[in-house]
Amino acid sequence: MNKIMDGNEAMALSAYNFTEVSGLYPITPASPMGELTDKWASEGKKNFFGTPVKVVEMESEAGAAGMIHGSLLSGSLTSTYTASQGLLLMIPDMYKIAGELLPGVINVSARTVATHALSIFGDHSDIYAARSTGFSFLASSSVQDAMDLTCVAYLSTIKGKIPFVNFMDGFRTSHELQKIDVINYDAVKKLIDKDALKEFRERGLNPNNPKTHGTNQNGDVYFQALESRNKYYDAMPDIVNSYMKEINKITGRNYKPFNYYGAVNATKVIVAMGSVSETIKEVVSYLTKKGEAVGLVEVHLFRPFSVKYFLNILPKTVKKIIVLDRAKDAGDVGEALYLDVLKVIKDVSTKVKVYGGRYGISSKNTTPAMIKSLFDFVDSKDAHSNFTIGIEDDVTFRSIKYDKNFILPSTSTCFMIYGYGSDGMVSASKDIIKITGNYSKAYVQGYFQYDSKKSGGVTISHLRFDSHSIHSEYYNFLNRFVVCTKDSYLKNMRIFDKIDDNGIFLLNTHMSDKEFIDSLSNYNKRIIIKKNIKIYLVDAEEIAKLYGLGNKISAIMETIIFKLGKLIDFNFAIEKIKEGINNKFSGKGGDIASKNLRAIDNALSNIREVKIPNMQYIPEMPKQYTKFEIINNMDGDSLPVSSFMDEADGALDAGTSKYEKRDISKFVPCYDSSKCISCGLCSLVCPHAVIRPFILDSNEVLDAPDSLKSKLIDIK
Amino acid sequence: MNKIMDGNEAMALSAYNFTEVSGLYPITPASPMGELTDKWASEGKKNFFGTPVKVVEMESEAGAAGMIHGSLLSGSLTSTYTASQGLLLMIPDMYKIAGELLPGVINVSARTVATHALSIFGDHSDIYAARSTGFSFLASSSVQDAMDLTCVAYLSTIKGKIPFVNFMDGFRTSHELQKIDVINYDAVKKLIDKDALKEFRERGLNPNNPKTHGTNQNGDVYFQALESRNKYYDAMPDIVNSYMKEINKITGRNYKPFNYYGAVNATKVIVAMGSVSETIKEVVSYLTKKGEAVGLVEVHLFRPFSVKYFLNILPKTVKKIIVLDRAKDAGDVGEALYLDVLKVIKDVSTKVKVYGGRYGISSKNTTPAMIKSLFDFVDSKDAHSNFTIGIEDDVTFRSIKYDKNFILPSTSTCFMIYGYGSDGMVSASKDIIKITGNYSKAYVQGYFQYDSKKSGGVTISHLRFDSHSIHSEYYNFLNRFVVCTKDSYLKNMRIFDKIDDNGIFLLNTHMSDKEFIDSLSNYNKRIIIKKNIKIYLVDAEEIAKLYGLGNKISAIMETIIFKLGKLIDFNFAIEKIKEGINNKFSGKGGDIASKNLRAIDNALSNIREVKIPNMQYIPEMPKQYTKFEIINNMDGDSLPVSSFMDEADGALDAGTSKYEKRDISKFVPCYDSSKCISCGLCSLVCPHAVIRPFILDSNEVLDAPDSLKSKLIDIK
Repeated sequence: MNKIMDGNEAMALSAYNFTEVSGLYPITPASPMGELTDKWASEGKKNFFGTPVKVVEMESEAGAAGMIHGSLLSGSLTSTYTASQGLLLMIPDMYKIAGELLPGVINVSARTVATHALSIFGDHSDIYAARSTGFSFLASSSVQDAMDLTCVAYLSTIKGKIPFVNFMDGFRTSHELQKIDVINYDAVKKLIDKDALKEFRERGLNPNNPKTHGTNQNGDVYFQALESRNKYYDAMPDIVNSYMKEINKITGRNYKPFNYYGAVNATKVIVAMGSVSETIKEVVSYLTKKGEAVGLVEVHLFRPFSVKYFLNILPKTVKKIIVLDRAKDAGDVGEALYLDVLKVIKDVSTKVKVYGGRYGISSKNTTPAMIKSLFDFVDSKDAHSNFTIGIEDDVTFRSIKYDKNFILPSTSTCFMIYGYGSDGMVSASKDIIKITGNYSKAYVQGYFQYDSKKSGGVTISHLRFDSHSIHSEYYNFLNRFVVCTKDSYLKNMRIFDKIDDNGIFLLNTHMSDKEFIDSLSNYNKRIIIKKNIKIYLVDAEEIAKLYGLGNKISAIMETIIFKLGKLIDFNFAIEKIKEGINNKFSGKGGDIASKNLRAIDNALSNIREVKIPNMQYIPEMPKQYTKFEIINNMDGDSLPVSSFMDEADGALDAGTSKYEKRDISKFVPCYDSSKCISCGLCSLVCPHAVIRPFILDSNEVLDAPDSLKSKLIDIK
Repeated sequence: MNKIMDGNEAMALSAYNFTEVSGLYPITPASPMGELTDKWASEGKKNFFGTPVKVVEMESEAGAAGMIHGSLLSGSLTSTYTASQGLLLMIPDMYKIAGELLPGVINVSARTVATHALSIFGDHSDIYAARSTGFSFLASSSVQDAMDLTCVAYLSTIKGKIPFVNFMDGFRTSHELQKIDVINYDAVKKLIDKDALKEFRERGLNPNNPKTHGTNQNGDVYFQALESRNKYYDAMPDIVNSYMKEINKITGRNYKPFNYYGAVNATKVIVAMGSVSETIKEVVSYLTKKGEAVGLVEVHLFRPFSVKYFLNILPKTVKKIIVLDRAKDAGDVGEALYLDVLKVIKDVSTKVKVYGGRYGISSKNTTPAMIKSLFDFVDSKDAHSNFTIGIEDDVTFRSIKYDKNFILPSTSTCFMIYGYGSDGMVSASKDIIKITGNYSKAYVQGYFQYDSKKSGGVTISHLRFDSHSIHSEYYNFLNRFVVCTKDSYLKNMRIFDKIDDNGIFLLNTHMSDKEFIDSLSNYNKRIIIKKNIKIYLVDAEEIAKLYGLGNKISAIMETIIFKLGKLIDFNFAIEKIKEGINNKFSGKGGDIASKNLRAIDNALSNIREVKIPNMQYIPEMPKQYTKFEIINNMDGDSLPVSSFMDEADGALDAGTSKYEKRDISKFVPCYDSSKCISCGLCSLVCPHAVIRPFILDSNEVLDAPDSLKSKLIDIK
């Protein structure tokens, strides 16, 4: 059965079945797993053992870790869902849970650990921080993996006693919508090792079988007791492999502790873990078709690291290995996966070269161009380890150059939708994906690029539609259709660069056609003409206002996107949008649903195509932007390392909001003293301090310039 | 200036000078550092900046970490002292402190992280758990290092901005008494980089220089900002090296980021970190004198790991490298230091073999015999990595065999004193070391082997005296003088095995000479005769009782040990003991001091030598002990890994106190119903449940056996 869901839902769904107790404290980007578990439990959804999950929300992740430790000790299968600092807070308990051979699973949407700055985005720094705890670590590369491999994690820990960190890439997988096969849970349920489960329950704290847990050992015996668990670690890779085989039988897929993809006679092989594997597969597929001997080792079982399974699938022809780590171990000679592979290879060959470097830190977009450059890099005379890819390091010169214009041939149809936080366009994008994916044979993918400013920040939805399954784990590059709900974005963001030849651009704006054309830079006009881009304007806000929706334009825009995007039959799509609105607002009271339905019916009322006169436009001198402006223009990726030397400690000078004039409001606030109640809140709600109230005495008011607006307050 | 102190005092003393604010939460074995800092601060002791340290005790190590982060952000030089779980709780803040380039120092007495069981003892599992945080890590191998290198840590962090974990081995260094040179702090103070310090203070949160710290970055720029700190990590090894050179000028010692010790043409080299380095130096010295080409690389600067300084000191002749890790990374292909060295070596040579293994986990005693065996092991056909040394792994067969009888020639005079927790013999041992060390040219060493049962547990004090500095970081093997304050220990502990030929044994006992001789096993009698051991008995408790000291025998025993041990002039020693007693009890009121003084004057009153009749003693059949008895007999080190397979998860069956009959009380408690007030506390205070009260009704009393002792309680 196909279903469209994101990684969090896929992982949570599988986890739910195996979970009796869940101790949690939600954290981005893992929160939806806890929230879904809580929701399903409250709806009475039953796990494999016939009971709803008992959900306990603790006061922090440290509390959740203690709670799952205790719950496991009592013989209940227990899960949690976390990331980043949350996982760090669990480390002390993780050593205990692993040491006590308790079959718990921590499901992780891997996220950057805060250093100089906090980041909500994805990399493996949290995973690496916890890698010495004695847990097993199982990596999913895709939403489908998240569903399937979560079953492997639970089945394996029940049988093998070593607990698991079961992880996927935060945002890139956790928040990516994909059409996946829902696994046959009835078949999965039969795979549980009932004897092992019984033994686990009997090991639990129980007055009928009193045992002392959490004991204290001295230096005379601790070391021996520690080594007595070797056999559990030695056994785990075989256990995982055998459950993968069972899952393969159920799903028809081909999971292994390490999967090999590429030429059988590959001489150059990348070793990687997580969503980047999908991108690498695309590049490897492209290059092998061109006759290049390249390949990928996709790591699923990161710990215990199995030399046997790794060497089993590595082509004997390999001469150069490139290991990609999605974390930085500052001060170390290399990162974790690199050092592992180096060790394994050096034990069997002195000739194979092993290079290691960092990529994708904090959700840094990792493109096919970057991956392709790796294969060239290791053949160059500059080849070295400790490289970085995806950034320009113009200070310590560790970054690899790549051809920014290289694009893989692709069968996908790409849409890109620019909105702003809370305008509903991310939800509309998800709706478009679900309607299209659910009611056609199309594979779909949705990735939602957020600015962590949340409400008011820029959102960019990346939509892909394809007749083949989609493995492009990077931003859309050239799109058939680009939508923008804020005309102010066009001023400084390079949106037209993202549109393919003969593509479509749709803008929501109050502007007239002429005003729009006049507002365009010559740079943009040249692109539009060169690429033969069709331009449509709509004033969705006018329609929204007309039907009493305020500034809620998302249903209107969604309708127009279906009209112009031609994904599926337009009338069918309208029907489904309306169904969705009826479901969403049913029982909410008022006439919100009917207002939306009428707006949808009239969504196309003021849409029109605009032609840019085909003439010579002399390009403007490129603007010199400050660093903050470049970041606000969504072009921060282009900033080199040298831009950050003055704030290497993450500290920021005061007063930088002056660089941030995004013109996101259509209206300008004016102080009206006749309505002022002197509450002062106006100065508080504006993050840009547009209104600044001062208390003046009557003489100061007389001395003030005439432009001062003031109001007399009677202070008793 | 020489002074006798332990590692905690040495580290705390240096740290104090550089510290303005100390946020702490004490934990074994680092507690004395916090306690001393608090004591010195309360006494008004001034740091290098002319103020006493401001000490803030937090509610946990997590709180302490947050507090030092905040204090550093405000521009105050800030320290803490921790270990084990304490360090784990600091990990989230450590990423922040390093990311924000704040010059803090966490002083660590490295301790085992609790897994299947808690252990208060020493290894590097806490250090390794925190190694990815971006801190620098500086290791001390000895008490002297702890004083000197702590200065290097502070000086380097002020100049280089990367914070430090400044660590030594818990117990083995933190609690070892040594006579060391107190560094010239006036000279050290001059080394502070005043410009860097000024810059740090100016970076601090300050309304006159407003900055935003703890910022939030998105995926567009985080990676670049992370890499902008490379230059600080690249610079740190040179900074550390240059401060080591300055400290070398002051002290006349020779610290480097990595120190090499051994043959200039060594083919086999051990790489190790911490106190084991001292033991390895002894073995290397012994073997090189015999012409073997062996050496040691002693790691001081563990992070940032400097390839340059490592290769600088590594002999070009090396063919085999053995890396010792004092922690286990369960599930990894190898431990941290091993993987580092492997990487460094494989970049420069394909011919040098690198082997890695584990030792010394949880204070496991690591002897010269074990070290010597490593050099033989790597030449054997069984040579492999992932080995263990110091235990017998009869399950997964990773342990290396060694000759248990191999002893290094030594000039040290060894004493070993068996007591029990709270009997005062550890304090008496420390007193013996200090009096001898302070008033003679002798180098001294004291190591105190505790059972973590605390009060009532076995204590074994290992004392060494030498005309050369002492580097033996392992238990005493054969002793000139062994003292035992509990005759019950002789039943099952192999105490006479620890005495050297012609050595002395002193026992505190109520037994008559004949009772003592009769109580000895034939096994012990044979040893005594074979080794020509002189036996002395004393009834110190009788003397103590006579002078009103109850069972406080330590001053009496100390006096006798000086008499029989002949370390320094006996009368001078007595004078010093008395001085100590006067100081200790002055102002405490009562006549405790005078009672002790009189007891000391009469300490020798009932001491006598006992001769064991020289005849054929047929050895007994060796007793079969249970695992618990073996542990109680202080012979747990002999248990192989297979002994722990049934409790690999650390769980313990109930009712094991029955194996623990240590006869530590000289008196047997009897229930006296005429004095009973029915409080029930008797059953509570006895951990062995010797007295078990039950409430019976009058019929049950009548039915009970005659041996039941009962008391009528009137329940209203």
